[in-house]
Amino acid sequence: MHQDLIVIDGLQYSNWDRNIFLQLKEGGVTMVHATIVYHEQIRETLLRIGEWNTHFEQNADLIMPVRCADDIRIAKATGRVGIMFGAQNCSPIEDDISMIAIMRELNLMIMQLTYNNQSLLACGCYEAVDSGVTRFGRQAIKEMNRVGMIVDMSHSGERSTLDAIEISERPIVISHANPLSFHEAKRNKSDLVLKTLAESGGLLGFSLYPFHLNNGSNCSLSEFCDMIANTADLMGIDNIGIGTDLCQQQPLSILEWMRNGRWSKLKDYGEGSKSNSDWPEPLTWFKDSRDFPNLTTGLIDRGFNHTEVAKIMGQNWLRFFDEGLAPQAS
Amino acid sequence: MHQDLIVIDGLQYSNWDRNIFLQLKEGGVTMVHATIVYHEQIRETLLRIGEWNTHFEQNADLIMPVRCADDIRIAKATGRVGIMFGAQNCSPIEDDISMIAIMRELNLMIMQLTYNNQSLLACGCYEAVDSGVTRFGRQAIKEMNRVGMIVDMSHSGERSTLDAIEISERPIVISHANPLSFHEAKRNKSDLVLKTLAESGGLLGFSLYPFHLNNGSNCSLSEFCDMIANTADLMGIDNIGIGTDLCQQQPLSILEWMRNGRWSKLKDYGEGSKSNSDWPEPLTWFKDSRDFPNLTTGLIDRGFNHTEVAKIMGQNWLRFFDEGLAPQAS
Repeated sequence: MHQDLIVIDGLQYSNWDRNIFLQLKEGGVTMVHATIVYHEQIRETLLRIGEWNTHFEQNADLIMPVRCADDIRIAKATGRVGIMFGAQNCSPIEDDISMIAIMRELNLMIMQLTYNNQSLLACGCYEAVDSGVTRFGRQAIKEMNRVGMIVDMSHSGERSTLDAIEISERPIVISHANPLSFHEAKRNKSDLVLKTLAESGGLLGFSLYPFHLNNGSNCSLSEFCDMIANTADLMGIDNIGIGTDLCQQQPLSILEWMRNGRWSKLKDYGEGSKSNSDWPEPLTWFKDSRDFPNLTTGLIDRGFNHTEVAKIMGQNWLRFFDEGLAPQAS
Repeated sequence: MHQDLIVIDGLQYSNWDRNIFLQLKEGGVTMVHATIVYHEQIRETLLRIGEWNTHFEQNADLIMPVRCADDIRIAKATGRVGIMFGAQNCSPIEDDISMIAIMRELNLMIMQLTYNNQSLLACGCYEAVDSGVTRFGRQAIKEMNRVGMIVDMSHSGERSTLDAIEISERPIVISHANPLSFHEAKRNKSDLVLKTLAESGGLLGFSLYPFHLNNGSNCSLSEFCDMIANTADLMGIDNIGIGTDLCQQQPLSILEWMRNGRWSKLKDYGEGSKSNSDWPEPLTWFKDSRDFPNLTTGLIDRGFNHTEVAKIMGQNWLRFFDEGLAPQAS
């Protein structure tokens, strides 16, 4: 069934080049939600979009921009990998609500309200106290709802996430995280969050980043698929997908940029530690995008039927984008 | 024939508000090329676009954004005024060629390579020496050609303008200026420029800004229409249109911003002088956008037939946009 599947990866942040695009294609990936910025503000975000336009020009045989949900189907039909832009922080709008519509016009389809820290919109999962969605945040969510930009709370705190689910008139996502019950980590999510997310029509993308996994880099494929099965029991089969959090070919300096941005003079180690500060070892069964078929096989072996596997591997994301990216009826 | 005409104003820079939108509609204007920036760089250009998005939301009954040439026809059919974004300087791309595609994606359809002064792309009409289109300018024109952003040389020097006509693979415009033979002004254009422009398929928009007119604010409608007739003889009936250069409800501070930007410590008076530094008195027969029917009448009285009047009042611009805004076939 590998050939027929629509495979959607709900998040990657790689050091994009032709090699990685070839790997995505080889792995049968139809579309990847590509993080284009972490802490970049408006001008720097446009730089990143400019770099992507060069990728699109130079690799038109392999990749294409996703400007609406149907472009995912076009990518599948033409054998290319769709690239959907997303931001892991709200820095691309700075302090200006009018930038939401402008960034959406530039095809920024998904935006996290926070990245670990407190932002102008909400609280990140690494702060000691989460005071919830801010005044600006409430208006930003409303505006994101209006223009069809998806709210992503992957790196947000519990209260902010529950607030965002309640405030948003459209379902939101947690594009790359796992259940806290599977592995205790600040980035993973409580059953309360996951259940509330599912009840509101939202979607969770399962992360393959070792820091989010039980036994880290030694987590087995069957453990991972057991987690998916347990989460399907909690959230339902329609509200789960994949969001690998793959960071391919990135030097340590990028991990440090993700963790420290421009906000910290001290070195912050994020999910790592001083003695374990580098990128984690990859999983043996998921080293890069060529290993997506292993996930499919793992899910089949775990007892999911073909319809369920298709949903988890991409159909749920596709349905979500069909609904979530259209501008709100006025 | 007023009702049936497609009326296109090739340039205005007004202090936009509902009152001005109502005047445009009352004057039968189908579309206006609205200058959104003079010296604004990237971040400030996005601010201006954000302000326009608010105008579009709050005045959806009167105006609509022009995202392609067919939107002009939709504006006509739905009784609204189409707004086409343009820049009177290349400041919105700063020093970055990748910003051309990004600004085009945000519907910046027309960009002047210079505004009076030397720019990174070419030379303005107020410099002592015009060294022509620069190295960056050559590449920028090629990129503008590729994405379908129209090159406008209204405020450029003679050599730069002739260079741009030659370098550009697609016809360019002088959106708002008059023949030098009609009135001696640095902003007006030589017969050589106008003839070369026409031969390359380019378009001239006649300006109604008094500093560009013989007898200034006292220029009569028949003098103006005589000029159009003489220019039609020089350039052909298909290569001329209107570009009023109307600046409605703008305070003196805006005129000073246009003239001085951030580049001058001394006060530059542009087309004015120290003793005549304010906005010029408007023409009695063209005070604001409600007076477009006077132009139509003036052209008919001058002996143009209905087809010719329709071309001058908008059909030539429409044909130009049909061809000029489509992305170049790759």
